[in-house]
Amino acid sequence: MEVIVIGGSAAGLKAACRIARLKPDAAVKVLVRDRYFGVSACGMAFYLAGDIDDFKALISTPNGTVKDEVYYRDVKGIEVLARREVLAIDRAARLVRFRELDTGREKSLPYDKLVIATGAEPLVPAIPGVDSPGVAYFADFEQAVQLRHDLERGMIERVAIVGAGFVGLELCEAFRAMWGVEVELIELQPQVLPGLVDPELAVLVEEELIEQGVSIRLGCRCNEIVNDENHICVFDLAGEGIHVDRVIITVGVRPNVDLARAAGLEIGSAGGIKVDAHLATNDPDIFAAGDCVELVNALNGRNGVWSFGSLASRMGRVVGDNVCNGDSQFNPIVCATVFKVFDITVGTVGMTAVECRSDGYEIGESWGTFHDRLFYYPGATTMNVKLVYDKSSGEVLGFQGLSRGSLLHEINAASQLIRQRVTVDKLPEFEHAYSPPFAQPLDPLHYLAYIADNSRSAGIGLVPPHEFLDLPTDTVVLDSRSPHEIESRPLDVEAKRRIEIPVEKLRSRIREVPSDAQIVTVCQTGGRSWDAALMLRRAGWNQVSILAGGALFLPKSSADRSGSTAGTEG
Amino acid sequence: MEVIVIGGSAAGLKAACRIARLKPDAAVKVLVRDRYFGVSACGMAFYLAGDIDDFKALISTPNGTVKDEVYYRDVKGIEVLARREVLAIDRAARLVRFRELDTGREKSLPYDKLVIATGAEPLVPAIPGVDSPGVAYFADFEQAVQLRHDLERGMIERVAIVGAGFVGLELCEAFRAMWGVEVELIELQPQVLPGLVDPELAVLVEEELIEQGVSIRLGCRCNEIVNDENHICVFDLAGEGIHVDRVIITVGVRPNVDLARAAGLEIGSAGGIKVDAHLATNDPDIFAAGDCVELVNALNGRNGVWSFGSLASRMGRVVGDNVCNGDSQFNPIVCATVFKVFDITVGTVGMTAVECRSDGYEIGESWGTFHDRLFYYPGATTMNVKLVYDKSSGEVLGFQGLSRGSLLHEINAASQLIRQRVTVDKLPEFEHAYSPPFAQPLDPLHYLAYIADNSRSAGIGLVPPHEFLDLPTDTVVLDSRSPHEIESRPLDVEAKRRIEIPVEKLRSRIREVPSDAQIVTVCQTGGRSWDAALMLRRAGWNQVSILAGGALFLPKSSADRSGSTAGTEG
Repeated sequence: MEVIVIGGSAAGLKAACRIARLKPDAAVKVLVRDRYFGVSACGMAFYLAGDIDDFKALISTPNGTVKDEVYYRDVKGIEVLARREVLAIDRAARLVRFRELDTGREKSLPYDKLVIATGAEPLVPAIPGVDSPGVAYFADFEQAVQLRHDLERGMIERVAIVGAGFVGLELCEAFRAMWGVEVELIELQPQVLPGLVDPELAVLVEEELIEQGVSIRLGCRCNEIVNDENHICVFDLAGEGIHVDRVIITVGVRPNVDLARAAGLEIGSAGGIKVDAHLATNDPDIFAAGDCVELVNALNGRNGVWSFGSLASRMGRVVGDNVCNGDSQFNPIVCATVFKVFDITVGTVGMTAVECRSDGYEIGESWGTFHDRLFYYPGATTMNVKLVYDKSSGEVLGFQGLSRGSLLHEINAASQLIRQRVTVDKLPEFEHAYSPPFAQPLDPLHYLAYIADNSRSAGIGLVPPHEFLDLPTDTVVLDSRSPHEIESRPLDVEAKRRIEIPVEKLRSRIREVPSDAQIVTVCQTGGRSWDAALMLRRAGWNQVSILAGGALFLPKSSADRSGSTAGTEG
Repeated sequence: MEVIVIGGSAAGLKAACRIARLKPDAAVKVLVRDRYFGVSACGMAFYLAGDIDDFKALISTPNGTVKDEVYYRDVKGIEVLARREVLAIDRAARLVRFRELDTGREKSLPYDKLVIATGAEPLVPAIPGVDSPGVAYFADFEQAVQLRHDLERGMIERVAIVGAGFVGLELCEAFRAMWGVEVELIELQPQVLPGLVDPELAVLVEEELIEQGVSIRLGCRCNEIVNDENHICVFDLAGEGIHVDRVIITVGVRPNVDLARAAGLEIGSAGGIKVDAHLATNDPDIFAAGDCVELVNALNGRNGVWSFGSLASRMGRVVGDNVCNGDSQFNPIVCATVFKVFDITVGTVGMTAVECRSDGYEIGESWGTFHDRLFYYPGATTMNVKLVYDKSSGEVLGFQGLSRGSLLHEINAASQLIRQRVTVDKLPEFEHAYSPPFAQPLDPLHYLAYIADNSRSAGIGLVPPHEFLDLPTDTVVLDSRSPHEIESRPLDVEAKRRIEIPVEKLRSRIREVPSDAQIVTVCQTGGRSWDAALMLRRAGWNQVSILAGGALFLPKSSADRSGSTAGTEG
């Protein structure tokens, strides 16, 4: 059996190796355009950051063997042909035509089965000057090596990063943390991580970026990039210019489907190659895997394209199985995501509230601030998390959050729970492992489900963190915290009436709370405000709600934040 | 409505607070025998260790309020009556009779609904002298405070811990890490953590204990404890004496069911109070929650008793709901467990292989050593994990492991997957979140499922780590590692023929491998040995298997280990 794989990243190589394992007598050839292949692309930002010293780590096995042609031939039993640009797939003749980039010669190879793993390429925004020297996309390994070289030689003092998705944010850290580069982060949307997290969490990520010295420009459209003898200027709509040494554009990727389309293979509505659950295209002898493929979101059934190394690896194995007449499936996904932004971890799975609403769901949300282990255990820190669920069915639609400690365990558990279509009522049946160094007796997922239930059953409303500062000014804020907590994290609500009564004293001082006003109770993490609200309800107060997630779900200082984003134009 | 709760730990207080929230006009009284209540019992070992400075942390809220009678009354709306020993439950009269320990007076209180949350008490082994002064059970808060006091004053130089379950192991660290106490760990079974992890993992935990200076006596039965003027001696069966300053016995707990039994409530086969899915006893007005209750193992359907703060907290809420005519359920469990032993984290969920076999399952097992993040990311370390599954149905029955980094995310994901009765074929559909600082593109759970599949489909056997040293001496071990890896972690298999050929060179040097022998390929983590084994299979070798989990799944030096356990009698 002759097998051709087009593409030398995770999906393609995984598929090729799997086929060689399952069918030792198959001839498996991988055609790769670049010099390097099998690159751990997700590690490039960390190489740039200096966290990884030698770029060879990104193209090596854990024991230090470089994954070159010899390695793949001798250890994996596959033939990798680098520097070959595929020109066309001839389905009738079952041939792949390609050019040897080093010789310029055109050749062709026959196939019985073909795997397309052509990946994705950076989206190039339609901005004049976007192809100027000094403008990079950080999609290419050699480009990353060049940038690191320039950083090591102090050639970059100021950089503009266009696009505040997670790659953009990883790059903020890469340029800033070790190299001290001034970073201007430019984002068209009014928040960082648009589509990945909801605004109230984005605000906390923005706060971290600002604390780390990143300058953020939200709602800012790049109008033109001008490179005048290596003085680069990025102009916004208002004509204001940002002078930098380099521009990195990370506004997303698009699947590489030109070859597939030209060969008459079906392209899906989201722009990726259309495949069935076995990852077969509409030609049963041609499979596709990785970033070039269009996948289905398990929650809303919509097609989309995702550029995730984990999905690509799993798809590679599924294709390998099926090329060898196996019956492996790759099912709809829930988009489990985690990434590091300076000292915080951000994670998300399922859909955001914004996305749910635009899909027409009537949703419920609950928020909480929780310790990542028992509060008294050394190193305990907090996470801010939220749950999104369908109000009528109770089905959990999404979970997202950020943490100064661990978060992956929540994302991975939520991933499986959401895949199972768990309802918020059944969520507390999740059985987590508990010990003080690692967890609390109740998991944040339990608490978020309980909060949803409490709010419903007690008739006490939740004020979302991002709406707290915009409450009517006649709202009375009852701060239930102790004086030292209030001092450590003051509320920026001068405009509103504020009463400070620690929850332990509320019973005896309850008459200090006006009975005719809208009351919002506040505490540090969102727990005690329930006790305060219930005490008021019991004593006859009717208009009581709580600040969901507590004071630790609010940015430390809104004043600082608005200062830093000054000059931004929508 | 009059509600009485018996017991002041997690389950009882949670239930009481929940009832007060749901039914503000209910009178909720909690009868507690001890002075302290609401103690975070799981934190006592860490308080003893010195990780937690002030014992008040264990009885306080995160913001430092001590959870005393006033707190529960003013904030939670319940009445806690401490130092009351309940004498009897009179179901006919709906009364609870109790003694006020401070006055000696007997009283009674009426109830409409009763919650039994009497917890568990330490098992006292039938050893002469077990009630001598200086023998403690570490179940009591005041005892922990006294031990810490004695440690701070240097009054304890040597301690014997009887029972190597997870509490026993936490105590090894508590005595040794900060206070430098000599610790003698005595266990009747031939391994630490019996029933919790399988032998090949126990051996790695034992290695950690030995490296930390703990002296381990396995298969050792305590025959007598003698306290001669504060010189305590623990004698084993052979009459050998271990001289220590204190003995701590942690051989398990038994549910406190005497009150329930005397009241005619049903006790289950495992010795706990029998409850239905709503946690109601056979008296519909009496509920039970926490360690006194018997639960069902979701996998084998067998009843058991577990002493887990997380289960107790969740049960408390379920009972609270149902006392107020709710419809909350507490379903069978999968026993998700995590704990810290010095520098390693140990976790387990579902059943061990030993347990499965004794239940009559025909099982498959797969083992692996994996990095806890991308191998090149700073701080990367490894975990040793295994999967147990039913050979005929493919159903995953258990997951266990240890890690020098994170492990909780694996346990929590496996917990949910096992609850769902996932099969090993479907396990790769688990969608984890990936980024180099936190994970690998494929999760250890994926790899373990792939290994199970590979072994089946390629006809290549897995040699379990604990059987490797006992292979027939004519077995040929093919070490596929690089010379520097072999040097860093030599194999202790002098008795066997060993050939060292790095996997990258095997293709050209394959004739050095004898074709008529049983070959076991070995590498560092269990990955490359597959490549080597497949290469041999392809080239015509028939008797090939691999060392599952690699050299990093073997204790560093068996010689050291056997030396340290010398003197142990079975």
